[in-house]
Amino acid sequence: MDPKAFYDLSYGVYIVSAWDNGRPTGCTANSAIQVTSSPATVLVSINKDNHTNRCIADCGHFAVSVLHEQSDPAVIGTFGFRSGKDFDKFAAVPYDVKDKMPVVRDSCAYIACKVIGTMDTPTHTVFLGEVFGAEKTGGGRPMTYAYYHNVIKGKTAKNAPTYQAETPAPAGKRVCSVCGYVYEGDFDALPDDWTCPVCGQPKSAFRKA
Amino acid sequence: MDPKAFYDLSYGVYIVSAWDNGRPTGCTANSAIQVTSSPATVLVSINKDNHTNRCIADCGHFAVSVLHEQSDPAVIGTFGFRSGKDFDKFAAVPYDVKDKMPVVRDSCAYIACKVIGTMDTPTHTVFLGEVFGAEKTGGGRPMTYAYYHNVIKGKTAKNAPTYQAETPAPAGKRVCSVCGYVYEGDFDALPDDWTCPVCGQPKSAFRKA
Repeated sequence: MDPKAFYDLSYGVYIVSAWDNGRPTGCTANSAIQVTSSPATVLVSINKDNHTNRCIADCGHFAVSVLHEQSDPAVIGTFGFRSGKDFDKFAAVPYDVKDKMPVVRDSCAYIACKVIGTMDTPTHTVFLGEVFGAEKTGGGRPMTYAYYHNVIKGKTAKNAPTYQAETPAPAGKRVCSVCGYVYEGDFDALPDDWTCPVCGQPKSAFRKA
Repeated sequence: MDPKAFYDLSYGVYIVSAWDNGRPTGCTANSAIQVTSSPATVLVSINKDNHTNRCIADCGHFAVSVLHEQSDPAVIGTFGFRSGKDFDKFAAVPYDVKDKMPVVRDSCAYIACKVIGTMDTPTHTVFLGEVFGAEKTGGGRPMTYAYYHNVIKGKTAKNAPTYQAETPAPAGKRVCSVCGYVYEGDFDALPDDWTCPVCGQPKSAFRKA
């Protein structure tokens, strides 16, 4: 079995959000697909270890914010590499409440769903949602997962279904200890308040490979 | 609810295949996603009216052939706009048997799965499959659904989750009665053996809009 075959499946880049006892929370996801057109249903697959999984199950609703190619990569990092259990992700990322659901402002569309079915898998829960709200929130081309990897040089969180252990960074390069982003330039020349472009961590979170 | 929001979800273009009592069959699909990485599982969503749906349920296995940007659009049309019940699709499209599953030769990768779970939805069945074989079958960039629509100018079958009624073709243009492809040029100047580039129908299948 060649894991490279899996890389040929196409995905987008989404923030899947829910309410956590009145506080908005969410996580980065690449798997959100429309399943039926009438009534419109959408499914998402969320790791059981993600705080968002429990919040969707508890509140019975989720929203999918579709990121576009110009969306700030730090949004992906904030939602993909930190836990909503101990960090208020939406305090760091501007959002609006649309159809009573928290939606990332820096997006091109959102889809709000009520959970009508679930499927259990070894590590993820597949939530099937009936759509009750969906709007375009901005222009811009939807970001594909390929764009995120090839253009933004983004990394995949360990909880993602598409996670594969990556080749270690070349010796001497600085690597973000949270998201694995490799800084290619002169690290010491960066200003002190520089942060990881993928997950927003400070310079102190970087280690030498 | 604005259906344009749904267009911002990203997909690939796949042929999902199965055995129909020893004969290979399949259908075009845009929704195939990896759900877990260990063990590797992949899900596909197939309309209940599709012959392939019953064949996957009966044989308990499916394969996903990933099409690439140079794949012949007629493959998509053959598998997307005709029924495997009364038409031997694989007789018209070269294939190989890989890991005991029929796989489209004109692809860049395949993933072979054993069904380990299903989720019922109003019109589609979501099949969850544990991967038992996956290989790269060729080079080329995986075709995205956006590429199929924007570059190939492909159409969406009525059974697809992403189907939306389209604006009628301009009066006088010739439209394929099977897949909805609109021929923009001088139709009468086409040779008699010309076929629809999307679904392979002959000239006689075209009607004036």
